[in-house]
Amino acid sequence: MANPVLVEVTRGGRVESRHRGAAVAVDAAGQIIFSKGDTSAPIFPRSAVKAMQALPLVESGAADAYGFGDREIALACSSHSGQPEHVALAAAMLKAAGRDADALECGCHWPFNMKVSTRMAASGGKLTTLHNNCSGKHAGFVCVACHLGHSPAGYINYDHPVQGLVRDALGDLTGAHYGVDTCGTDGCSIPTYAVPLPAVAHGFAKMTTGEGLAPARAKAARRIIEACMAEPFYVAGSKRACTRLMELAPGKVFAKTGAEGVFCAALPEQGVGVAVKCDDGATRAAEAMVAAVLALLVEDEALRDGLRAIAGHSISNWNGIETGHLRVTEALL
Amino acid sequence: MANPVLVEVTRGGRVESRHRGAAVAVDAAGQIIFSKGDTSAPIFPRSAVKAMQALPLVESGAADAYGFGDREIALACSSHSGQPEHVALAAAMLKAAGRDADALECGCHWPFNMKVSTRMAASGGKLTTLHNNCSGKHAGFVCVACHLGHSPAGYINYDHPVQGLVRDALGDLTGAHYGVDTCGTDGCSIPTYAVPLPAVAHGFAKMTTGEGLAPARAKAARRIIEACMAEPFYVAGSKRACTRLMELAPGKVFAKTGAEGVFCAALPEQGVGVAVKCDDGATRAAEAMVAAVLALLVEDEALRDGLRAIAGHSISNWNGIETGHLRVTEALL
Repeated sequence: MANPVLVEVTRGGRVESRHRGAAVAVDAAGQIIFSKGDTSAPIFPRSAVKAMQALPLVESGAADAYGFGDREIALACSSHSGQPEHVALAAAMLKAAGRDADALECGCHWPFNMKVSTRMAASGGKLTTLHNNCSGKHAGFVCVACHLGHSPAGYINYDHPVQGLVRDALGDLTGAHYGVDTCGTDGCSIPTYAVPLPAVAHGFAKMTTGEGLAPARAKAARRIIEACMAEPFYVAGSKRACTRLMELAPGKVFAKTGAEGVFCAALPEQGVGVAVKCDDGATRAAEAMVAAVLALLVEDEALRDGLRAIAGHSISNWNGIETGHLRVTEALL
Repeated sequence: MANPVLVEVTRGGRVESRHRGAAVAVDAAGQIIFSKGDTSAPIFPRSAVKAMQALPLVESGAADAYGFGDREIALACSSHSGQPEHVALAAAMLKAAGRDADALECGCHWPFNMKVSTRMAASGGKLTTLHNNCSGKHAGFVCVACHLGHSPAGYINYDHPVQGLVRDALGDLTGAHYGVDTCGTDGCSIPTYAVPLPAVAHGFAKMTTGEGLAPARAKAARRIIEACMAEPFYVAGSKRACTRLMELAPGKVFAKTGAEGVFCAALPEQGVGVAVKCDDGATRAAEAMVAAVLALLVEDEALRDGLRAIAGHSISNWNGIETGHLRVTEALL
């Protein structure tokens, strides 16, 4: 059974492309309050769970020991755009632990944003691991290892103590199974685990309310979510969906993208978590899906309008001529 | 009724993303010899029909008048990578008609390939319309206008004589209807028309055999297809799918990509045209689909192996670690 079409892209008044997917919203008690498509199939949440993966950074005391505030914690949860501020802060986090870019095991890639990359190249910038969109998360892992007295070398591996702590946190939050049998390798080389969409959404709901979590974990989880909402630029970057979603209503929306069409979000005031997966892995569709689901859940009218503007918008070509629209289907309206 | 899943992307041994679509192969008589999915729905073939859109360049005598050889004709059919060779040749084509980059109405964008763009930025390169992946096609349009004594200004518009010639050629080749009612605006601002997939495949089959075409058009069509196969680098660029597909067996495969998951191809020796459309618009899937359909049609074993290697391959992350595979499903095997 195919998942429903949740997003359409039009041209000249016709639907040119279609994105299928599944979407779910869950409260902190685990109750599903919205669901479309097959949400039982395990999916890799990828970078959308970086806020969960950042728990050991706070819980271990590393964040406090190294003097990290909201920005550093937000960057540890980020898939950042490689803008100069992101790169500098990742370097500063490593320096706090007495390390540098050489400690990062995420690999190198040019910032995905063409303007950022070409500006960097034009000014003679040299590509380093700090520019990897995951460098903040990896800097956090290095800090956890150093603070706990482990060698950071190999911190990306399944058997390294840091990944063990991450796995424990993920399991506690989502209630799902995390093991070698559900494990894949992420783009930045750390383990990523296939889990059902509602488990991920439930985990984010719990992060906002603390329900079912030990007090220390509840406190750390809340601190992470609040850090991201306070510093949305450090979770993504200029014009990015995560940043825009969190800037709509400061403190009211948490949002984090993941590769291959995953997007997670939370509404802390309502204690609700959201997770979507676009079947085909398209980011443009996942952004629309998560914004549309959030729009169905919020009561504030201005916020709802802002979410709807991200869930549906016109598309222009290189000359700025409108060629069509991206819109969610009735299933998400 | 959903189209079948034709391509899967795996991670850690699981399917992470799925691409649905339709694919068809048609001979020059219009007989469908392979078909998957709903091929009756009109689709925008986008840049995949640039070789058809280049017919007026040859038929008008402009190509001969300006001394264009295979490279210039191939570039007129290209969605090029903006590499220095492409940019220089587009400029030379315009110069032959006494024009320059200012005549191009395609808009500007950085070359899509990050290495090409960052190398260009690092060496102080300035972005011009010549870098637009469609600049070769647009240079061809400008040449047609100039050669026929029309002002090239507004050559991108539906009512300009050049677009009238393009429309006539498309209609003759595909047998489909081309009018304002089926018209959308392409990324480079020229009209693009929604037509059924088999009509496009049939048009490419006719381009290779000349069947049903006036002698002059048949000759021009064959010259265009041969120019592209002779100069595959000028149809796309380094490591690009069109280029790789045509390099597999020189003179035996024609291939051209289009935005939003369209890919067209032809096997001149068999007089067969192929057209695929990935429902969600993904290029990675369209590339696999068209290679897989071609692999089903060819008899040469080495060529078939080469096509299969494009239809299915491993995927590595930033550290070069294999994270999964892209593969076609049984529907295309």
